[in-house]
Amino acid sequence: MGIVVQKFGGSSVANTDKLFNVCKHIIKEYEKGNYVVVVVSAQGKTTDELIKEEQEITKMPNKREHDVLVSVGEQITISKLAMCLDKLGYKAISYTGWQLPIITTSVHGNARVKNIDTEKINNSLQEGYIVILAGFQGIDEQQDITTLGRGGSDTTAVAVAAVLGAEKCDIYTDVDGVYSSDPRVIRDVKKLNKISYDEMLELSSLGAKVLHNRCVEIGKKYDIPIYVKSTFEKESDGTLVTSQESLEDLSISGVTKEDNIVRITLIGKDNKIGRIYKVFSILADNDINVDIISQSFGEHICKDISFSINEKDLVETLELLNKYSEELNIKEIKDDKLYSKISIIGIGIANNPKVKAALFETLYENNINMHMISTSEIKISVLVNMTMADSALKALHKKFIEG
Amino acid sequence: MGIVVQKFGGSSVANTDKLFNVCKHIIKEYEKGNYVVVVVSAQGKTTDELIKEEQEITKMPNKREHDVLVSVGEQITISKLAMCLDKLGYKAISYTGWQLPIITTSVHGNARVKNIDTEKINNSLQEGYIVILAGFQGIDEQQDITTLGRGGSDTTAVAVAAVLGAEKCDIYTDVDGVYSSDPRVIRDVKKLNKISYDEMLELSSLGAKVLHNRCVEIGKKYDIPIYVKSTFEKESDGTLVTSQESLEDLSISGVTKEDNIVRITLIGKDNKIGRIYKVFSILADNDINVDIISQSFGEHICKDISFSINEKDLVETLELLNKYSEELNIKEIKDDKLYSKISIIGIGIANNPKVKAALFETLYENNINMHMISTSEIKISVLVNMTMADSALKALHKKFIEG
Repeated sequence: MGIVVQKFGGSSVANTDKLFNVCKHIIKEYEKGNYVVVVVSAQGKTTDELIKEEQEITKMPNKREHDVLVSVGEQITISKLAMCLDKLGYKAISYTGWQLPIITTSVHGNARVKNIDTEKINNSLQEGYIVILAGFQGIDEQQDITTLGRGGSDTTAVAVAAVLGAEKCDIYTDVDGVYSSDPRVIRDVKKLNKISYDEMLELSSLGAKVLHNRCVEIGKKYDIPIYVKSTFEKESDGTLVTSQESLEDLSISGVTKEDNIVRITLIGKDNKIGRIYKVFSILADNDINVDIISQSFGEHICKDISFSINEKDLVETLELLNKYSEELNIKEIKDDKLYSKISIIGIGIANNPKVKAALFETLYENNINMHMISTSEIKISVLVNMTMADSALKALHKKFIEG
Repeated sequence: MGIVVQKFGGSSVANTDKLFNVCKHIIKEYEKGNYVVVVVSAQGKTTDELIKEEQEITKMPNKREHDVLVSVGEQITISKLAMCLDKLGYKAISYTGWQLPIITTSVHGNARVKNIDTEKINNSLQEGYIVILAGFQGIDEQQDITTLGRGGSDTTAVAVAAVLGAEKCDIYTDVDGVYSSDPRVIRDVKKLNKISYDEMLELSSLGAKVLHNRCVEIGKKYDIPIYVKSTFEKESDGTLVTSQESLEDLSISGVTKEDNIVRITLIGKDNKIGRIYKVFSILADNDINVDIISQSFGEHICKDISFSINEKDLVETLELLNKYSEELNIKEIKDDKLYSKISIIGIGIANNPKVKAALFETLYENNINMHMISTSEIKISVLVNMTMADSALKALHKKFIEG
């Protein structure tokens, strides 16, 4: 008898019919003889509706009270799901974040899990209960309610799996796994059977938002196998997110695209060393996320800097740079738009220098210019004109995934 | 600086505008220099809607999970009200039942308050916060969520006032006080300035449902002055519920009416002593509330019993009595319908034997027959034909209140 953790997201529990559908997945694992712990999100649009009501009161809600408000969503789901299982003749018991408790940091709206008390879970499992837990929420040391931020229920599920020493964590969602690229662009998109934690981290930070980053990080740290599966398909193998060692020898896992990227270039008056630090700390203080950075060397050593940002941040970025241009000794600010960032991700990149060459060759053959390049152990990203982005995605998917 | 507890019911906090309206009452007390503790119910129809969704799942919800579900209503209200006060520039902090905690018995759906920890409330008051508490809810010794049943937020408010040693407890509602009778029947109904706890208990158990019985019991036990006031009228004196000593010399406080009463008469085969006990324990086991009981004496000593029940329980009562008639040695079961119970309530009854005589005389003068009579220290109830009930109510109100 092993412990299995299952997580069901908001669309999987959106109404009574869907709650009973979720029960099938739970009962199936339970009838196999497993101890089953279930983590759920708020139903459908519940949280959005609470936030809409909150906005009627204030555009700047007190963060502590905001967490008190939005945490009710999961509390509704756990009680209802326990009732559904009860109705079907199974013993089920629900626990909120504070009841375990799940202790977090005090950063309201974006708290991190510090500790999960497993006593009640283990006792209830031993008594034959299916245990239903509220995702997304916890309490801090002062017993104030906290929430974990976007995708927080995934994090709860994998963290619970980690502290219980669970066999696996099944993340049920409305897609049936992790795909090699965007199915809206690529016809022959491939569902991945396995992917490493690191690749998953790169994929999810690149817009293929299937799993929350922090949940993957915890999975990696405690080596919890995470299965991404469909709630709505009867037999779904899904995608297994696991450690690198157990992976099949798949060179490249995915090809991703992120649109609406702007390249900013700063021409400096001098080659003062501290300029980069100052520019990026000003932008960071204003929550502007800078992605790829490149610096020209050679003749203009340290004088010019280019970096990419999302177009939504362009106006604010230019305002800030202009405001500080004197202090930063900037002669000229240029912005080029609009680009897309195309990335290939795979553990095969690090061990195979031919991957980079093949990428550049494929783009060249398709007459696609690169405007910035960034590389890591398992990822290569390039900026291309947004008009060429789909062609680039198709060509690279054909080369690395279908080929 | 004294502590003032204010309670606002569901209709008083039903939407954003009403929440801001409630803030006016709170701020007014706060600006007087008082420490203010506010207890709130769920907004408007929130609890009803949750129960409707629950009924989609099961008609027999697990009681523990039911309390997990319905307790979210007050949690939504406390966070929103704290945000409203925050928006208006006042420091406010919310606490759920478990956060204090409010410890109750484990009877889900009808728990009783055992203890309220005042540490967080007192600390927050000292720090200048207005403290907002969720009514209706608590936790038991196992940290399971409990609810206090119908009108439970009133009970929370008066219990909080008791443990804090508050100066008073203001119960804001959608009526502006306690009235001498039903304004739908009596034109010259009189708003009471003061009423004793005991009279209030009799009034509320007789259908004038302004305050929850248990809240009045706690108020009496700890001698907390309770003011019943209107949320929606600017200057409302309301009604003060207080101890007997401080009352003006008002003989009779109220005249009430309860319709749809049936009188059951059991004719026994013998005069066995235990029959009364058995009849009423069978009915009690089936949650049938027996009200007035009378027994014939004289020739038929102990043979015949009459009692009144609500008409909604008639079918079940007759089924039970027929089922056990052999065992109970009952010869005949008669049911007479439909009656109304008319009651007069007042601390003047005990000290003035003329009140009873005046009641009987008034009914006689109006040609109204009495079919059962029941008396207590502060109440006299009679059954009259339902067709005559409004006439009886008007005649008695004129005699005892207007006269």
